[in-house]
Order: sequence, then structure tokens, then C-alpha cells
Amino acid sequence: MSLQELSLRQIAQNFRTGDLTAVSVMALCQQFYEETEQNLNAYKTWSGESAMRVAESVDAMLAAGCDLGPLMGVPVSVKDLFAVPNMPTYAGSSRELGKEWQVPGLLIQSLLRQLAPITGKTHTVEFAFGGIGMNEHWGTPRNPWDVKEHRIPGGSSSGAGVSLCQGSALLALGTDTAGSVRIPASLTGTVGLKTTIGLWPRDHIVPLSKTLDTPGLLARSVEDVAFGFMAIESMLRNQSVELSKIYSLKGLRVGIPEHFFWNDIQPDIADVVDRAMRQLEKDGAVLIPITIPNCDEVYKVFQAGGLGAPELSSFLQQELPESLESLGALVKVRVEGAESLSALEYLERKALIEHAAVGVQTLFEEVDVWFNPTLVSTAPCVGDLKSIDAYKQANMLALRNTSIANLMDLSAISMPVGLDNNGIPVGIQLTAAAMQERRLLSIALRVEEILGKPREILGKLPR
Amino acid sequence: MSLQELSLRQIAQNFRTGDLTAVSVMALCQQFYEETEQNLNAYKTWSGESAMRVAESVDAMLAAGCDLGPLMGVPVSVKDLFAVPNMPTYAGSSRELGKEWQVPGLLIQSLLRQLAPITGKTHTVEFAFGGIGMNEHWGTPRNPWDVKEHRIPGGSSSGAGVSLCQGSALLALGTDTAGSVRIPASLTGTVGLKTTIGLWPRDHIVPLSKTLDTPGLLARSVEDVAFGFMAIESMLRNQSVELSKIYSLKGLRVGIPEHFFWNDIQPDIADVVDRAMRQLEKDGAVLIPITIPNCDEVYKVFQAGGLGAPELSSFLQQELPESLESLGALVKVRVEGAESLSALEYLERKALIEHAAVGVQTLFEEVDVWFNPTLVSTAPCVGDLKSIDAYKQANMLALRNTSIANLMDLSAISMPVGLDNNGIPVGIQLTAAAMQERRLLSIALRVEEILGKPREILGKLPR
Repeated sequence: MSLQELSLRQIAQNFRTGDLTAVSVMALCQQFYEETEQNLNAYKTWSGESAMRVAESVDAMLAAGCDLGPLMGVPVSVKDLFAVPNMPTYAGSSRELGKEWQVPGLLIQSLLRQLAPITGKTHTVEFAFGGIGMNEHWGTPRNPWDVKEHRIPGGSSSGAGVSLCQGSALLALGTDTAGSVRIPASLTGTVGLKTTIGLWPRDHIVPLSKTLDTPGLLARSVEDVAFGFMAIESMLRNQSVELSKIYSLKGLRVGIPEHFFWNDIQPDIADVVDRAMRQLEKDGAVLIPITIPNCDEVYKVFQAGGLGAPELSSFLQQELPESLESLGALVKVRVEGAESLSALEYLERKALIEHAAVGVQTLFEEVDVWFNPTLVSTAPCVGDLKSIDAYKQANMLALRNTSIANLMDLSAISMPVGLDNNGIPVGIQLTAAAMQERRLLSIALRVEEILGKPREILGKLPR
Repeated sequence: MSLQELSLRQIAQNFRTGDLTAVSVMALCQQFYEETEQNLNAYKTWSGESAMRVAESVDAMLAAGCDLGPLMGVPVSVKDLFAVPNMPTYAGSSRELGKEWQVPGLLIQSLLRQLAPITGKTHTVEFAFGGIGMNEHWGTPRNPWDVKEHRIPGGSSSGAGVSLCQGSALLALGTDTAGSVRIPASLTGTVGLKTTIGLWPRDHIVPLSKTLDTPGLLARSVEDVAFGFMAIESMLRNQSVELSKIYSLKGLRVGIPEHFFWNDIQPDIADVVDRAMRQLEKDGAVLIPITIPNCDEVYKVFQAGGLGAPELSSFLQQELPESLESLGALVKVRVEGAESLSALEYLERKALIEHAAVGVQTLFEEVDVWFNPTLVSTAPCVGDLKSIDAYKQANMLALRNTSIANLMDLSAISMPVGLDNNGIPVGIQLTAAAMQERRLLSIALRVEEILGKPREILGKLPR
């Protein structure tokens, strides 16, 4: 059985029985990186050597009977927004930020403390301000699912999903302000979890929106995301955290939004999503047509620049004024647009989304999760997005379905269910109430059992 | 021994031994109210009858051996920003707000659940936006310490301190966004506690600044504030909350800010404050000259309208648009001033005060509390503040010293130490780190033991 077919849980077990060494796993990651990076461009900074030093320590420690946690020896790639010791932070911008952006926050500490080798810093959209994954300074990582055309990998955690496809990391840390974990997960056939605001600490992460930013996880299956989630949670809370107990989809109340999420959907994507939905129904899930209150209103706020544009603009002015001049054109125009916004309009936006977040709560008395396509169109080709207008339109469409969970402060996960006619993965999104990650993951695990693991349903990634 | 000489703890004990009834206490409150209200104008809404019904229940319940908590039978006045069942909320404005403002939040529930009779809703500055206590719609409560001149009582919890002097309530609930609990406490010779943001819930309280608002307590002594604080804390947390153990001032590190807080101080107030400071030193406190970082910067932000002006303006536009037209002149001009503020300037203000709040933390490694006069000038006469300019100047000066603890998110208490040459009480403020209320109260209790209780040091209130 190859490494790619083992779950993180199995790998961790094999480390402890001595059937596998952390060094051999990291050596494979290094090899995959070397074989594919020139083509895929997943990383801004590769740190294979220091990751290998950590892997060596893991093997020595485990041999000495010292177990520091489930992620010991599991190679993790980190979006280049998180401060990590001895790795420069660019946050997708043209220049390295100050050394203070190498001081790790609580989340990175939770990885370091369990000796998870950090493979490097993956590419991100400049200051994470975009859902497509394009970067004008460092190039756009390539979506591995199309060997001919350079299609976008999804963003802003644009290197995160690619690093998993590449095999250079087995878990990837991203951030999600409007879909930046779930979009790349959907477009690369991986699984992406967006956490509720406040569940995980946000210190020492370059902020896009101090209000809406959330750290998140990507992995090769729901099983692996759940494994990583519990490992990090247990470390953060200093106590063992377990998933909720859900053994079957029978009677699970799955809301199907009647409006908004299916608008402008590509027919082949609709077919794939529809098939998944019917399969869940066959397995006992109760599909309930729902209307999500205030959906159009909060999306209008988002289209106008939301909180991200003014909050990023303010952060850059105060903390990184020198970055403002060198912003790429795709980001610059939207950051500068925030300068004319009044404080009252900003506060009105904030009040409107807070009101929507309260309003949506009662919905979760009727349904356990709601279900929708993560994206409604395939990954566009980079060459087709050269004009600002084409970029803006594609960006907004990519973010549309995912942004709602951010604006209403919910937990959400994207998981693959098939390929579209271009051979690009199709993801579905399950959305649950705030702080329901453990329950959401438990439900997604059952869905994965029924629909199959990504590698089973998507088949082999083209090489 | 008269009721006025008993502490809340003694009163609560007497209720339980049968030496005192809640009905007799409430009857005295009613009597004091009737005798003085026409002159003092502490209440927008008096609710003596329903409070008496609660007092009757208290006596019946205690006779039946049913103890619901320390504040059982203790008459409490509530600032007219808190929603209380069956009492209209005006929030100092000219019209009654909707019935949704009669649904109690968690803090009021913590009083109701222990059967604390609520005597009524005390006057407030319109939407709490001012530190002087003037109200153009309902008149300005009279400072009870001057029988000849109508001097201001301090605000925005303008009726809270007056209700305690009046004897119509033994504990008063207020809110403090820039000093609105501590200023009226200082000017009425009572004790006022400002809590840290987030310690106490803010739901169902009409907001001035959603960022900086904090509920607070006023009472006739530190001992009584501590009693009320622990009773509310225990109810909110569903567990018994105790003060920190501090038995002496010996070695207590008291910071004395060298700048800012003594500027423009009235010489007679400086004398009174200085005497208190020397007394603490004589009793073992170590006075340490300190500089509070970023003090001038955050105060400049405050002078420009801070967060209160834009956040109140935004709240009124969205939730109470009809109130905007009928705002009194003193409030209107400052609310309207926020309309020209940009989102980036607002966010810059917010970042600046957050930065200052972080910066001040290290100071509390050097000192346990810092010490300063709560106000640097006496209570002005209402007649002298008729012009907007005179009002603005007096308002800004009143709020200056207290505002720092709000802007830097600290805990603080004001307690009386003497009278100025006008016979108006002088308060000192002790400021501690965020979330240090239990330690701060414990220190303030020791200070009160040394300096004396308000009634001992201030002598009899003129009638």
C-alpha cells in the first residue's frame, strides 16, 4: 500500500508500531516536491531540510517512547500568512514582511509542540484578497487536474490544495475569510474546513479582515481533516477533544436552499452535485427545501467590498504602508476602493451581517446542515483572466456560495463528489451552525463513507 | 442604628435573622423617594409599587426558608438604558423606545432571579452620550451636595449616584463607556466600578459604543459595591465568586502617573487627593512614579469623537432613525459630526486604542494599580453650561481622566476621599489591568478601611 493510500490515522499508527518512519514520509514529500514543483508552483518557500530535521527527531523521540501528539511526524504545509519560525512571510506581496512575522501564534505553536514537520509556506493571493488564486508577483499555482491548460487552483490559499495533490504535505493550513479554504479544496479535489470565528486563535496571522478571518484546514479526505482538527483542538484546549457521535445519515435533516446557490450553475456541475444529493437521500437523509434569510442582502454587502476591503486597507496603511505602493493591480483597485467608504457605511455593513448571523440561527432548529455546490463553475484558465473586469467577475462568482458562511459566521466544509466536463473536481459544501465543527465533521465523515473518499470518486490525478 | 448606617451585608444578614424585613426597607426607600424626588429628579420612571410586591415576596420566601441569593430584597435602581420588564425605556431620549426594550438581558435577569426589587429607571444623558449628566428632555438631576445651586450630578448615569444619596436605592446599575459610572460616583460621594469589556453581558442594553460600553455598579461604599459585584458575578457564572485575598496595603505597588491626570487640577481638589495619597503611603503602599504609554494619543482619538460618535450614529440610523430628528442640541451636534468620518479613520482609531491596550499591559508588571483624581474640577452649575461651547469644554474635561481606562480596556473604581471647597465630593480612581475586578475591589476595600467609608469622610449630606 502506498503512502497516498494511507489515512493520517494509519500513518500515525505506523509511526508508533515502527512500520513507517517520519523520515521516510518526509523523504517522499521532498521527492514529490522536487518532481513537480517547477510545474505546479505550490510554495513560496520550501523548507524541506528543516522539516527533515524535525522528522528525524520524531523517529528518535518515538523510539524513546515519547509521544507528543497525533500530528507528530505528519508533514504540514502552511499558507504564507501564518508566522512560522525561520521562514520569511510575504503574504503574497512582493516583499518580505518584517521579522516579527516569524513569531509563531498559538495555532502554529500547536503544530510545533507536537513535532509536525512544516514543509514550507504555500502561495497565497496577495494579502489573501481574492478567491481565484492568482498572484501577480509570484505566479499562480497550477491546478494539477489539467495538464494542458494553466487553470486556477482556487484561492486565496492557492498553494494549499496543490501541495496536497503534489504529495509534498499531508495536511495544509489555510485561512478563510470568504471561501479561501473551501474554494481551493473544491477545485483541487481535496477537503477544506472553515472554522467559526473565535474557535481558533488568529494571532500572528497576517490579517485580511480582522472581523471575518478564520483559520482552516485542508487534507486529502474528511477523515484526515477530522484527524488534524482533533489533534489541533486537543493541543489548543489541553484536553482530548472528540467528534460528536453520529453513526448514520438516517433522519439527518439536510437543508437544500431553494434560491441563490444554484444560480448560473454549469449543467455538468449541477448533474454531479445532484447525483450526490440523491445518493444521500437514498441513504436516509431527509432533504428539506429551505430559504436562507438575508442571503441576498449580505451578498450585496460582500459585492460592495464587504468588511475585507476597508479592513485590509486600514491594516496596510497602519502596519505595512510600504506595501501599498507595490500592490498588484488586481488587489490594488479593490483596496483603494475602500478609501471612499464612510464609517457609517462600514458600521452599517457590520450591523447587517451581524443581524443576518442572528437571523440564520433559527434555521438550524429545522435542519442539521445545509447542502450546496461549493462553486457553480469550473476553474477558469489563467489566460482568460488578464483583464481586471474578467478577473473581478470570475472572482466574485467563485466566492459567491462560500461567502455566505463567513458573513453569517457559520462552520462549513467542502468535499469532492466528482469531476466536471473539464476534468476539474466538483465540491459540495455542508454548512452547520456556529461552533458546530465537531458535529459537522462527524456528519461529513458519514457522507464520505457513502459517497466515497476523494481518491475513490475522483480517480487518479493526471500527471 | 439607621438603615443608612448598615452595609448591604448587614442588611442581608438582618433579613435572614428576621431583624429586618425587605418590606420595611422598601418602605423607607419609597419614603425617601417621595420626600426628595421633586427636588433631586433622580428617576425617569419610579416603580415603587412593583418593587414593594417583590419585597413582600422576599419576606415570604425567607420566612419559608427559601434563599435566592445575596441581593434578595436589596432595592436596586437601574439606569434607563437597561431593558427591565414592565418599565418603559427612554434611554434619555424624548420618546419611549419599542417594547423590545423591556425584555431583560442577562444582567437584569441576574437581579430578578435573586428577587432584588428594582426601584425604577434612573435618568441618563440622552443615549448616554455625555459625562456631565445634563438632559434637555427630562431635566438634569440635581447634585444633592449643593442645596443652593443646581450643580450637575455627573453622567451619563446621572440618576444613579443621586438615587443612592436620596436613599431610594441601596445599589445602582449604570454603564460606563468613558467614565459614565465613575464620574457620577465621584461627584455624588459614592463608589463606582467600571468593569472590563466582556466581563458582564451587554445584551438588551441600549448601546452607545458597541465596542467600549461596559455595565457597572454604584453603591454607598466599596464594601457594598463588592457585595453587589460578587452577588451578580456568582449568579452570572452559576458558582460562588470570591474576592482575591489582600489583607494589607503594605508593599502594594501604587503607580502615580506623572503626566496627564493632574493637568488643570483645581488646587483644593489636588490637596484632598494628595492627602489621601500620603495616607496610603503612610500605611505601607509604595508610590511609584509611572508614565502611561500612549495616553495622549488615545485621548486625542477620544476628543475627535472616538468610537462613541460613529457607533451611536450608526446604531440610531439603523435601529432608531426616528430618534435622530428629536435629539437634543447637545447630543445632536456630536452625533452628526460622525457622518463625515471615513471607514479608514474609524478603523485607525480602533487600531490605535487596541495597540494602546496591548501596550499598557506591561505597566501592570510594575504596579498593582495606578492612582489619580477621578475628576480635576468641581461639579459645574447647570446654568453655566447653556452654550454648546461651554458644555463641550466641561464635558471633555469631566471625561478626561476616566476615559483612559475605557480606551485601554482596564478595570477601574472611583471612591470618595473628601470634599472640595464647594462642598462637592472628591473621588480618587484606582485602575487595574483588564479582568482584575476581584483584585481591584480587594485593594479598594483595604483603601476604604484606611481612608474611611464615604459617610465617615464626607460627613452628613446636606438636606
